Amino acid sequence: MSSQGYTVAVVGATGAVGQQMMRYLAKREFPVKELRPLASARSAGQKVIFHGEEVVIQEAVPTAFDGVDIALFSAGGSVSEKLAPEAVARGAVVIDNTNAYRMNPDVPLVVPEVNREAIRQHKGIIANPNCSTIQMVVALKPLYDRYGIERVIVSTYQSVSGAGWQAIDELQQQSKALLNGEEISANILPVGKLSKHYQMAFNVIPQIDVAQENGFTLEEMKMVRETKKIFNDSSIGVTATCVRVPVMRGHSESVYVELKSEFDLDEVRQLLNNAPGVIVEDAIEEQVYPMPVDAADRPEVFVGRIRRDFTHPRALNLWVVSDNLLKGAATNAIQIAEALISEEK
Amino acid sequence: MSSQGYTVAVVGATGAVGQQMMRYLAKREFPVKELRPLASARSAGQKVIFHGEEVVIQEAVPTAFDGVDIALFSAGGSVSEKLAPEAVARGAVVIDNTNAYRMNPDVPLVVPEVNREAIRQHKGIIANPNCSTIQMVVALKPLYDRYGIERVIVSTYQSVSGAGWQAIDELQQQSKALLNGEEISANILPVGKLSKHYQMAFNVIPQIDVAQENGFTLEEMKMVRETKKIFNDSSIGVTATCVRVPVMRGHSESVYVELKSEFDLDEVRQLLNNAPGVIVEDAIEEQVYPMPVDAADRPEVFVGRIRRDFTHPRALNLWVVSDNLLKGAATNAIQIAEALISEEK
Repeated sequence: MSSQGYTVAVVGATGAVGQQMMRYLAKREFPVKELRPLASARSAGQKVIFHGEEVVIQEAVPTAFDGVDIALFSAGGSVSEKLAPEAVARGAVVIDNTNAYRMNPDVPLVVPEVNREAIRQHKGIIANPNCSTIQMVVALKPLYDRYGIERVIVSTYQSVSGAGWQAIDELQQQSKALLNGEEISANILPVGKLSKHYQMAFNVIPQIDVAQENGFTLEEMKMVRETKKIFNDSSIGVTATCVRVPVMRGHSESVYVELKSEFDLDEVRQLLNNAPGVIVEDAIEEQVYPMPVDAADRPEVFVGRIRRDFTHPRALNLWVVSDNLLKGAATNAIQIAEALISEEK
Repeated sequence: MSSQGYTVAVVGATGAVGQQMMRYLAKREFPVKELRPLASARSAGQKVIFHGEEVVIQEAVPTAFDGVDIALFSAGGSVSEKLAPEAVARGAVVIDNTNAYRMNPDVPLVVPEVNREAIRQHKGIIANPNCSTIQMVVALKPLYDRYGIERVIVSTYQSVSGAGWQAIDELQQQSKALLNGEEISANILPVGKLSKHYQMAFNVIPQIDVAQENGFTLEEMKMVRETKKIFNDSSIGVTATCVRVPVMRGHSESVYVELKSEFDLDEVRQLLNNAPGVIVEDAIEEQVYPMPVDAADRPEVFVGRIRRDFTHPRALNLWVVSDNLLKGAATNAIQIAEALISEEK
């Protein structure tokens, strides 16, 4: 890699997350010598604007990674499975935002605020966790360090942007149709590739990603497994119920946390206040708490509704909100890239 | 009361719940000799249709209860506080859908599927529990009877209709405005009488009703206190996080239940299947689970996503959905009235 900057590929450059990655690379003034936006053959030839200049999207093929230093992948698991090894073979470090490598023992799964040091173990690929996991572990980190965590029970309120542009469009189209008293069509949610699709507008759907044999969904099991891996602590119990709500952008989570030792609630607030990447918005008596419309387009994790649980002596409840396209995806990936280049210095 | 039928007053006849009460009285063929719709002076003179005939709304004043056998109240706590004693003094039995009397030790708090026998203790007033409590206790009842319940942790996804017609209208107006790229106004949610109002369209708001000193909201504490009272068991621990979502009608709940003894998951499904008022919709592998748009205008409580909790040996998770205007309010009130008259026979 060069001291004048890095050649950075963004795979999935036309996607909701890919676009935020490029925006965020520019915003954070990441030292980009050359931006290489990559996408499917269908999108090749289209242009993106980066630092005020047009850059042509190229087709994501193995040779497109020649000379790439850092490749940010966010084009689906199958694209990562096929092309990430090609990028690594050409000398790139891959930061992968899909589920393809997250649980691979050779691949660090990194949220810089929690386990930045794991980056050093990479063998070419570093995985970006699932959006719903990232915001939760950022909020849990200061509690884990101070008290230890026995277990977590989380119910999510996830926006449709996690399912891409098409899902955002579908929610808008359905909302318009219903408000005009017209018939709706449903083709994307809850899971594009499955056979049944349901109304998302003015509805909630208790399924994100495919079913697993144990009755949980893959999204729910991602939260379980990734949390253990990121904290490098398989003793943490996690139970998740993942639900899609008719919100464009921003995931919310109702989080019950059982700690290993007793705690003082003021100290918990203080710890969260001081935690990197966390903003506490917690004053229910003044109607202050995080909401997804306020968190949209902001890179932090917002925590509110902090309160003692009266059914267990070592438990508390939190309300955690973050922009799933930023900290849940693009921001975290760029932060990994920043940590990576700072390690090299 | 007469064998030819009962004189039934509906207080709050223009409201979202009051209208469902009248509709449901007709649908269930409740033996109504005379329907007396009552409302504020502003609405007096308007007409409602009952069994195909127009009935004029009268002003809800004390003398309007002369000759009334059963008075269904759903016009806000202050109206109930003022007029329920007047109705009782005139010989009516009041079934009150507000928060005014729910925790009063002289007032039974009744969900017929759970504690029908409590009706016998009434001294003129019977309280209808809060919508979010009703659907949860109906689902918990067979588990309580078979295994005992140690504690419950619930996160809700509540529709705006719980806040009345104005909240439904506000959600529709805001949704239209946002889809047209226009400015929105917010005047109702989360709590009409509080000073701050927030966007509901394409957002979630982690506040329902006013804040309490312990950091929970009143809605959350209603779920805690009412559950204990309905089961007549103060040992049940309940923790609630109540959240408003941009859904017109139907509340959803992610419910974690810790039982007192070990359980078999197939038996749990069987118990729920056989429970009165419960419909099990539980096959995640076939994308079968309850959703609010499917539950709307149906009187049952729908339960799905039934699965063992892997973080505790005696815990399971449920997804519980019901129409907050029906089982959460009108249906339950009419069921209480039905139980009441059947006790008298």
